[in-house]
Amino acid sequence: MLETLFAPKSIAVIGASRTPTKVGGIVLAHLVASGYGGGVVPINPFADEINGLPCFATLAAYGKEVELGVIAVPRDLVEQAVRDAVASGVSALIILASGFRESGEEGRILEEKIIDLCRKRRVRVVGPNCMGILDTTTPLNCSFLGDLPPVGNIAVMSQSGALCAVLIDLVVHNRLGVSRAISMGNKGDVSGVDVLRNLAADPATKVVVGYIEDISSGDDLVRAAEEVSARKPVVLLKSGTTEVGQRAASSHTGIMANPEVAYGAAFRQSGLVKADNFDQLIDFGKGFSLQPYLKGDRILVISNAGGPGTMAVDAIFEAGMRVAEVSESLDLLGKVNLLGAATVNNPVNVLGDSRPELYTEVLAAGLNNDTVDGVVVILTPLALTDPKAVVDAVSGVANSEKPVMLVMMGGAAMVTDTGSLPCYSIPERAVATLRAMLDYGRWRERPARVVNRFRVHRRRVERIITRSQRVGQLYLSEVKSKAILKAYGFRIPEGHIASSADEAVEIGSRIGYPLAMKIVSPDVIHKSDLGGVKLDVANSQQVRDGYDLMMLRIRERVPGARIEGIYVEKMLDRGLEVILGMHRDPQFGPMLMFGLGGIFVEVMDDVAFHLAPITYDEAMQMLLATRSYEMLEGKRGHSGIDTHAVAVALQRISQLTTDFPQIQELDINPFIVGEVGLEPVVADARMRLSEPLS
Amino acid sequence: MLETLFAPKSIAVIGASRTPTKVGGIVLAHLVASGYGGGVVPINPFADEINGLPCFATLAAYGKEVELGVIAVPRDLVEQAVRDAVASGVSALIILASGFRESGEEGRILEEKIIDLCRKRRVRVVGPNCMGILDTTTPLNCSFLGDLPPVGNIAVMSQSGALCAVLIDLVVHNRLGVSRAISMGNKGDVSGVDVLRNLAADPATKVVVGYIEDISSGDDLVRAAEEVSARKPVVLLKSGTTEVGQRAASSHTGIMANPEVAYGAAFRQSGLVKADNFDQLIDFGKGFSLQPYLKGDRILVISNAGGPGTMAVDAIFEAGMRVAEVSESLDLLGKVNLLGAATVNNPVNVLGDSRPELYTEVLAAGLNNDTVDGVVVILTPLALTDPKAVVDAVSGVANSEKPVMLVMMGGAAMVTDTGSLPCYSIPERAVATLRAMLDYGRWRERPARVVNRFRVHRRRVERIITRSQRVGQLYLSEVKSKAILKAYGFRIPEGHIASSADEAVEIGSRIGYPLAMKIVSPDVIHKSDLGGVKLDVANSQQVRDGYDLMMLRIRERVPGARIEGIYVEKMLDRGLEVILGMHRDPQFGPMLMFGLGGIFVEVMDDVAFHLAPITYDEAMQMLLATRSYEMLEGKRGHSGIDTHAVAVALQRISQLTTDFPQIQELDINPFIVGEVGLEPVVADARMRLSEPLS
Repeated sequence: MLETLFAPKSIAVIGASRTPTKVGGIVLAHLVASGYGGGVVPINPFADEINGLPCFATLAAYGKEVELGVIAVPRDLVEQAVRDAVASGVSALIILASGFRESGEEGRILEEKIIDLCRKRRVRVVGPNCMGILDTTTPLNCSFLGDLPPVGNIAVMSQSGALCAVLIDLVVHNRLGVSRAISMGNKGDVSGVDVLRNLAADPATKVVVGYIEDISSGDDLVRAAEEVSARKPVVLLKSGTTEVGQRAASSHTGIMANPEVAYGAAFRQSGLVKADNFDQLIDFGKGFSLQPYLKGDRILVISNAGGPGTMAVDAIFEAGMRVAEVSESLDLLGKVNLLGAATVNNPVNVLGDSRPELYTEVLAAGLNNDTVDGVVVILTPLALTDPKAVVDAVSGVANSEKPVMLVMMGGAAMVTDTGSLPCYSIPERAVATLRAMLDYGRWRERPARVVNRFRVHRRRVERIITRSQRVGQLYLSEVKSKAILKAYGFRIPEGHIASSADEAVEIGSRIGYPLAMKIVSPDVIHKSDLGGVKLDVANSQQVRDGYDLMMLRIRERVPGARIEGIYVEKMLDRGLEVILGMHRDPQFGPMLMFGLGGIFVEVMDDVAFHLAPITYDEAMQMLLATRSYEMLEGKRGHSGIDTHAVAVALQRISQLTTDFPQIQELDINPFIVGEVGLEPVVADARMRLSEPLS
Repeated sequence: MLETLFAPKSIAVIGASRTPTKVGGIVLAHLVASGYGGGVVPINPFADEINGLPCFATLAAYGKEVELGVIAVPRDLVEQAVRDAVASGVSALIILASGFRESGEEGRILEEKIIDLCRKRRVRVVGPNCMGILDTTTPLNCSFLGDLPPVGNIAVMSQSGALCAVLIDLVVHNRLGVSRAISMGNKGDVSGVDVLRNLAADPATKVVVGYIEDISSGDDLVRAAEEVSARKPVVLLKSGTTEVGQRAASSHTGIMANPEVAYGAAFRQSGLVKADNFDQLIDFGKGFSLQPYLKGDRILVISNAGGPGTMAVDAIFEAGMRVAEVSESLDLLGKVNLLGAATVNNPVNVLGDSRPELYTEVLAAGLNNDTVDGVVVILTPLALTDPKAVVDAVSGVANSEKPVMLVMMGGAAMVTDTGSLPCYSIPERAVATLRAMLDYGRWRERPARVVNRFRVHRRRVERIITRSQRVGQLYLSEVKSKAILKAYGFRIPEGHIASSADEAVEIGSRIGYPLAMKIVSPDVIHKSDLGGVKLDVANSQQVRDGYDLMMLRIRERVPGARIEGIYVEKMLDRGLEVILGMHRDPQFGPMLMFGLGGIFVEVMDDVAFHLAPITYDEAMQMLLATRSYEMLEGKRGHSGIDTHAVAVALQRISQLTTDFPQIQELDINPFIVGEVGLEPVVADARMRLSEPLS
């Protein structure tokens, strides 16, 4: 449990100093100033007392146990300080110094050594390379993050110490309060997942806002985030999204699935609220801190000027939400006639004189109206407006059922205390926050996830994979890939490998024309580019010609290729070509892909991703998420295709790639889908396996 | 000239009052407080003096001429006040009262009457329904917008009075100054175009920021904006982009071209800088006010913390700019070794101690380096940082050649005076501003526009249009549309109208197979949907069958349709199908459209727009602006098409629709384009004409 960190019985500041500009001096001063009620023990071999507190040369010299040690010594003294602290029986340590993993190989080795030391004695460590922690309930400020902020319900977590300080600073500047803050630094021991679990359990925390740069165990993060999000919203900003260079990948999915896609999918699935920048981090945090989340998308806008009302409406449409239809609501109309307006539209204009009671009458009617899910109240300073009176009146009417967001245009927002109303500089930011609150609300209210398990021939796949890995064949041929898919319930066209032209003719006459012929070779991955595919083969003469020509060409173009034969296969029913794929993300595991075949994927990048395991609903959402979805429903002479069958196929891939972590990439391209009732067919497929575990 | 408004010799406040909460009281007080040096004449029949100034019952009673009259009386007294003022010989008026055009028909009529009155006497009018004007150079505050702001180089214009006040307020809160401000209100006389022209000529104004809701004469705006943008940047926010409902349109272009598209195109073409919200309006205004515009896209980032540096890099990539490659620059490296870093990357990390001289050394090297076009300097408050010292040092190094943008994370930004450095709360906003400054810079440096004029048969088109309008045939048939296009140099397949099956066979044998057959009827617009098109007609029997069947079907499906015959036409060469179109925007005139045919337009909405007249370069930019551009270059078995020919075709449409304002919509769908050397062909076309001028 990390609870020791935030509410320890006693704290030793190792490297405490009376110099107010030294880290050990700042931390000690912060700790004392924070009003921490437990024992504070300065450790410094060169002082007997610091700021009135008795000081000890070492923890051993102090003699008694302390729960938490803050190591504020320079980097080169850290290892010895940790040894001493661990020996003296601390439960947890915070290591502030930098110069570890982040500075190169030598630092990494030292960091691992120190962390190892602690883990052996079950001592939890925050840092190194961090700025410490604070807790306003305990109270406790064991950091050089700045003064202890006011008490509040926002927990702050950050990988970067500087940005941890900035986040706290911004929370305070927005007249909000902090419950806990933690600068995680290198996350040598205590990880983001640990911190999230701790904050989920903290009763003082209503919302978590955080900044992260990387995630060491994506799988855990998704699981932990799901647990935490089910209790309270977590707003995260992840930086470093575009830094990635090109990677080698053999599948479409691999080429298209980049880390940003993976993070996006992981955030969406686990209920995390994604902020695009620091402004949003605070905007969203503010909304969640002060207001209930949004349960529907119909927004009422109340404004004392036309322009900002229009801006709010534009923003609501652009965010994919709806302007609540209140004009037919007699209830609201009755109230609004106060305004002297003949008709009432949303946005409701409370006119230039902006009397507080006009705002509150309309707001109260809106909140009581079941056509309204949330409200944006806009106040533009005009001559004779009293912003504070309006804010107070509006706060008095707001309740805990539906969020009310305040927009104050201009400098007034900066000088007016808006109390329990989250206040935004422009309508667009209030609306973006409502959208985040809606997404979170929908995630919270989502139906229970049911991941189907199909009956499959798992053993058969196991055998193919093991054998291929054993002989170092990590790119599986079409034939083997299809055999795997068949074992997981996919329809594969009938076909056999021929090792002579005669045999090909014989197979052809058995399964019937038209046929497809494809080279089978572990050395030929892009078959069709090399002349290794012939379609619409109509008779035995064409089979014979095709066989000889293909062999000739491949031997010319890929000299020395190991050729297992030519696969002779029944040609497929007509249908729409789609691509199904999977690319195993190093952080988050199997990332499923769906897209329409051909130009839709290759030119328009029109694909959707989702992490496995996937439910039927989620698979249908993937289809809907493509811009070309209407093609699936029928367009331009195509009749609609069996979307259900595609969703089921995605679920089967989900099961296959969850069952077999050895599968690194998988492409079914094309997967030919017809109308409802015609079972879709795997026309071509390929897979790449991981190196076998030695 | 509007100069009278901003620097009049004398001003009468008509409806002046000593009550400080009345408009006439506020305006008079503002005028006096602003230090205006000319004569101030309060007019009020119920007072002899107001605040020490002699007061007159009427302007006539005053006896002498005044240049500017501010009408601060209630709406019902406005007409008489205007009559008196005009009679007394004022040069310009500001009408503050509301209750005119914006309140309905009665108000509109009154407004027009008043404006007419003034125009007859050449009196310019600001408003009605406005908050007045101010000028810090004169100085003059003839408004109820608030106190006169500090002197500065930002001019503020706004259609909404409330938002005019907000804009001024925000400029001041950002420690910037105002040159002039004008609340335009209903724009009864003085329009946005007038104001823009005035601000262009104002030597005190370096940048214009403005808020508009509608534009009454789009054509003028584009021309005026081009003139003004050539002298100084104009940053505009336009609200009300999504309010538009569905409109009836017969062409693809018409369906896809919405007002937002039109505004976007008009802004882009005229060099206006488009702000998406009020935050951006101020962000951009601040950048242009304080720094030179950006002449290239290579940005250097200097930061004292890793996280914000990464955010800046993410934002630079996402904005389509480049991170300057400085690591190979010995010059910079030499300086940066101060940092003790082995390698120097961009972002340059000046490390936690953030000494001012580190910032300035790196910045100076960057500014001197010709691989750097602009700089983002990020300061994250850390223990021991002195923000003010860093800001002062950095300002000292910045120069007028390349923009330097400051980012101060957290509350520090709110309390530090950053002088000549525009300061942003997050890297993303600084980078977005740089992008706006780059777009403006590129527009300023763009090559001279040369609009080609082709030799065409204008008379022939004139005749077809006039005749069609005369008989009320506003939807032109394919045949007529093609005749028009032929006159403007398009290649049309050979074809003739047949009025019997025999005649069709005869035409067919003359022009050769394969043929296309299409119904010709002013009552059948969507020919193919109604069975009015038959392609790949291969011989005389098929011509005969096709003729009889088509006649039968059309008579069944469109009873009473006037049928002029069946058009028998040479079938076309193979090529890529693209769509060229034009939709006449009510504000901005002919809006040209380009898109790839079929699903690209219908499913993916992948089209590009540009206002006519268009240059060759601009037409090529339209092609490049589509997501499917790579299809034009050749992909998936297609060889590349003759993009030059498409650009020329767009120029020809530009000329046609500029020459003939009667053409409301035009679709060439498909336009079949082959490889270079094969002239493209108009396979089908339609046009819609305006009602003839009566």
